[in-house]
Amino acid sequence: MPDRIYNFSAGPATLPYEVLTQAAKDIVNFNNTGIGLIEMSHRSKEFMAVAAEAESLLREVMGIPNNYKVLFLQGGASTQFAMVPMNLLSPGQTATYLNTGTWSKNAIKEAKLFGNVDVAYSSESSNFNHVPASKDYEIAPESQYLYFVSNNTIFGTQFHNFPETDKPLVADMSSDIMWRPIDVSKFGLIFAGAQKNMGPAGVTVVIIRDDLIGRSKNYLPTMFDYKTHADKDSMFNTPPCFAIYVVGLVLKWLKNLGGLAAIEKINREKAALLYEKIDSTDFYRGHARTDSRSMMNITFNLPTPELEAQFIKEATAKGMSGLKGHRSVGGCRASIYNAFPREGVAKLVEFMTEFENRNR
Amino acid sequence: MPDRIYNFSAGPATLPYEVLTQAAKDIVNFNNTGIGLIEMSHRSKEFMAVAAEAESLLREVMGIPNNYKVLFLQGGASTQFAMVPMNLLSPGQTATYLNTGTWSKNAIKEAKLFGNVDVAYSSESSNFNHVPASKDYEIAPESQYLYFVSNNTIFGTQFHNFPETDKPLVADMSSDIMWRPIDVSKFGLIFAGAQKNMGPAGVTVVIIRDDLIGRSKNYLPTMFDYKTHADKDSMFNTPPCFAIYVVGLVLKWLKNLGGLAAIEKINREKAALLYEKIDSTDFYRGHARTDSRSMMNITFNLPTPELEAQFIKEATAKGMSGLKGHRSVGGCRASIYNAFPREGVAKLVEFMTEFENRNR
Repeated sequence: MPDRIYNFSAGPATLPYEVLTQAAKDIVNFNNTGIGLIEMSHRSKEFMAVAAEAESLLREVMGIPNNYKVLFLQGGASTQFAMVPMNLLSPGQTATYLNTGTWSKNAIKEAKLFGNVDVAYSSESSNFNHVPASKDYEIAPESQYLYFVSNNTIFGTQFHNFPETDKPLVADMSSDIMWRPIDVSKFGLIFAGAQKNMGPAGVTVVIIRDDLIGRSKNYLPTMFDYKTHADKDSMFNTPPCFAIYVVGLVLKWLKNLGGLAAIEKINREKAALLYEKIDSTDFYRGHARTDSRSMMNITFNLPTPELEAQFIKEATAKGMSGLKGHRSVGGCRASIYNAFPREGVAKLVEFMTEFENRNR
Repeated sequence: MPDRIYNFSAGPATLPYEVLTQAAKDIVNFNNTGIGLIEMSHRSKEFMAVAAEAESLLREVMGIPNNYKVLFLQGGASTQFAMVPMNLLSPGQTATYLNTGTWSKNAIKEAKLFGNVDVAYSSESSNFNHVPASKDYEIAPESQYLYFVSNNTIFGTQFHNFPETDKPLVADMSSDIMWRPIDVSKFGLIFAGAQKNMGPAGVTVVIIRDDLIGRSKNYLPTMFDYKTHADKDSMFNTPPCFAIYVVGLVLKWLKNLGGLAAIEKINREKAALLYEKIDSTDFYRGHARTDSRSMMNITFNLPTPELEAQFIKEATAKGMSGLKGHRSVGGCRASIYNAFPREGVAKLVEFMTEFENRNR
C-alpha cells in the first residue's frame, strides 16, 4: 500500500495530512511540556488554551455573532436529536420538521417524545431524492422552530437555499458545516458531528442563540441542558479533549487556506467534475434531483448491481476506498468533504471514463 | 523541558509512553492502509476489528462474565449519573445511594429526577474523609439498587471492601477501574470514564448485567437507553473511535504487564511509598482516614497554605506536575493511576523529605 490513498468515506472522513502529522507529534509531547496532549488535565492552562483557540477559530471562520454560544458536546448528532426538543419544546407545543432522509426521520422520532411534531414536508415517496423549496410547505403559526438537515449524507441531497421563516431555524449540518459561508444569524441553533467536515468522531459542535438557552419548561437532567454547558464554556465535565484539539487544527488549516469563501470554490470545482461526468453519459445515473444535488456526497448508480460491485472493487484496488453507497440507495457514493483533495476527484473521474469504456 | 515529566494529574492522566507512540503512528497511517485511524469509517472492517479487540481485551483482563454487556459510550460519567436512574428506576421506585464525595452528590441529584433516593450513608460532615463499611448503613427493602463511588478522586478515599447486599450493585469506578482484580459478577452495573485508568477523555465504559437492560418503564430517548447501544455493539451511531482505540492499546499494555494481579502489586507498592512517608512525620498530614485511603489519589496537607504553594511550585520546577489538590480539600494530591511509573513516586517521596528538612 502507498503511504496514503484516496478515502471517499462518508464519515469519519479524510482529514488534512498536515493535521494528522501535527496530532501525531502533540499526542506524545504537547508543545514541549513533557506531557502528551491526551494525558493533560482539561483544566491545565495548556488545554484551556487549546479549547479556547478552537472556539475562537470557529467563531472567526464561520462569522458567529456574539449573541451565540459555541458548545463542544459528546454523544454525536444522534444525541442532539433528543437534546433539541428537550431544550426547545415544552409539552403541548409544536415543532415543524422537514423529512428529507434517514437522519431527519430519526430526529422526528425523538422530538415526538417531547411535544407535537408537524412534518411539513417529506420526500420519502421519491426515496429522498430531493429537498423542498420554501414554497413547497407551510409552517404552522404555533410552531416553536423549523428543523431541517442541510445535507443528506446517505441520499446525496443538499439545501442550496435555506428555509425562509420567522421561526427559529434549527439545522443539523453534520455533513456540510463549513462547506461554504453562511449567515449564522439566520439560525436559532446549528449542530454538527465533527467527523465529516471538522475533525474526528467524538465531538459535536452546537451553535446556539443565547435566547434559546434555558427556556425549556422540561425538568432536564444536568448533562442534557444546553445551559449547563453554556455556563461552563463546555467544561462542566471533562470534554472530549483530543477531538476538540483536532477540530482546532482543522480550523487552522481552513483559515490558512482562505476560509469558507476559498473552500466553497474548491468544493464546487470538485463536485462539478463528478456531476459533469455523470451528466455526460447514461452509464452513470445520479440519485439526487439536479436542483438538490449535494456538493459533499455524490450518489450514483451504474447499469447493474454487478457492475457497481465490480466498479467498487477495481476502484479500491486503485487506491480509492469508501465508494460503496449506503444500502438505502445502493450503487456508489463519493464523499468529497472539505479535506478531500481535488486530485482524488480527478482520479475517480478518469477511472469512471475508463471503466465505462470497458464495460458499456 | 525534558521529553517527559512526571504527570500527577487527576485526569486526564498519564498514559503508558508506548501507547502514545503507537497512537502517533496509527493516527497518520493505520496498519499500512493508507488511511489514518481517525479518518477511518467506523463501519470499516479495520475499525470494527479495533473496537472488537478493545471489548475482548476488557472482558479478558477484567474477567467479565458472558451475561454482561460491555458498552463504549460518550458523555462522561456525568451522563451516567442520569442514565443509570433513567434505565434502572421507574417513577415511585427507590434507589439507595452512598454519599462519599462530589461525584456521588452529583449522581444523587440526577437520580432524584427519576425516582425516590434513599441516601443511606453520608460522610459529608467529616469532609468526606472516609467511606462506610457495610455495617454502617441499612438498605431499604424496596430499593432497586445500591449506588456507590468506588474511589473518590477529590478526597482520596476508596472502598477496599465493596458493599454487601442482594440488591444490584451499581458502581462508578471512573477513578479506579482495573486497579486490581474484582469479581464483576457481584455487580449489576459498573461504569467508568476512561481518562484516569483506561485511556483519553471521550469514552465511558459501561458494564451491565443483561437482565438490567431494557427493563425501565420510562419512555427513553433512543440514545439514553442502554438497550440501544447493547443491541448494536456500541455502533448505533458513530462511536468515539479514537478513544476506544487508545483504550484497546492500554488494555494490551496492561495484559502484557501481567494483568490486574500484577498491576495491583505495583499500585500497592507505589501508594505504600507515599503513605509511609506521610505517616513518618507530622509535616505531611493525610486527608483520608487510614482505613479508607485510596491507592489512586493520595491527598495530603502541609503545615500552612503558603508551604503547600511553595511545595507545588518547587515540585513543578523539578518536573512533577499536577500536584495541586482540589479546592474542596486544598493541599496536595498525587494521582498515581495504573500507568504512573514507580520512579515518579520515588522521586516525589525524595522531594518530600528534602522539602521537609528545609522547611520544618
